[in-house]
Amino acid sequence: MRAPHTSSVNRVFQALGDPTRRAIIERLGAGPASASRLAAMLCITVTAVGQHLQVLERSGLATSQKVGRVRVCRIEASGFAVVEAWVAHQRLTWERKLDRLGEVLDT
Amino acid sequence: MRAPHTSSVNRVFQALGDPTRRAIIERLGAGPASASRLAAMLCITVTAVGQHLQVLERSGLATSQKVGRVRVCRIEASGFAVVEAWVAHQRLTWERKLDRLGEVLDT
Repeated sequence: MRAPHTSSVNRVFQALGDPTRRAIIERLGAGPASASRLAAMLCITVTAVGQHLQVLERSGLATSQKVGRVRVCRIEASGFAVVEAWVAHQRLTWERKLDRLGEVLDT
Repeated sequence: MRAPHTSSVNRVFQALGDPTRRAIIERLGAGPASASRLAAMLCITVTAVGQHLQVLERSGLATSQKVGRVRVCRIEASGFAVVEAWVAHQRLTWERKLDRLGEVLDT
């Protein structure tokens, strides 16, 4: 398994490091929502939601689209694939190491 | 699948949000290392490594143990399990939503 690109990993973990952005993601998992609904749910301003959305969009965790006067936000899978690939890569590296250690101990 | 506990999710994503801590994790995946070796590799002080290690240990991503005068650091699987469970939970939520949408469209 190839490690995901460092800049994607940086962006996605920086985005997920913030609890408000994770709360947005958790809400969008249940279905699309408007920016103003997210703001009301999180008790923050629509401007603050917009700033968090920019970070989420840059990291491939969400998308948003203006429909009339409403900004509709949706979950996006590509950022999650980066997290999954990074964790799987770390796991593979240390499990290989344990396998090699096992071989050495068996001989 | 149950969502992992919020406080564990907070700790682990806060820990992984920092690129230096991810670099420590990536190095430890290849095998245990002393705090001073990590410091030399990252061009930071041993004190700074110690602070990052505290965050990693609290989130279950690493452990460390004093062996004589050397602090030996190791990767720890439980923090990774929290990330995997959180991502899997989000994926399951939105895939279920898509399935229900599919059923509505089919009828």
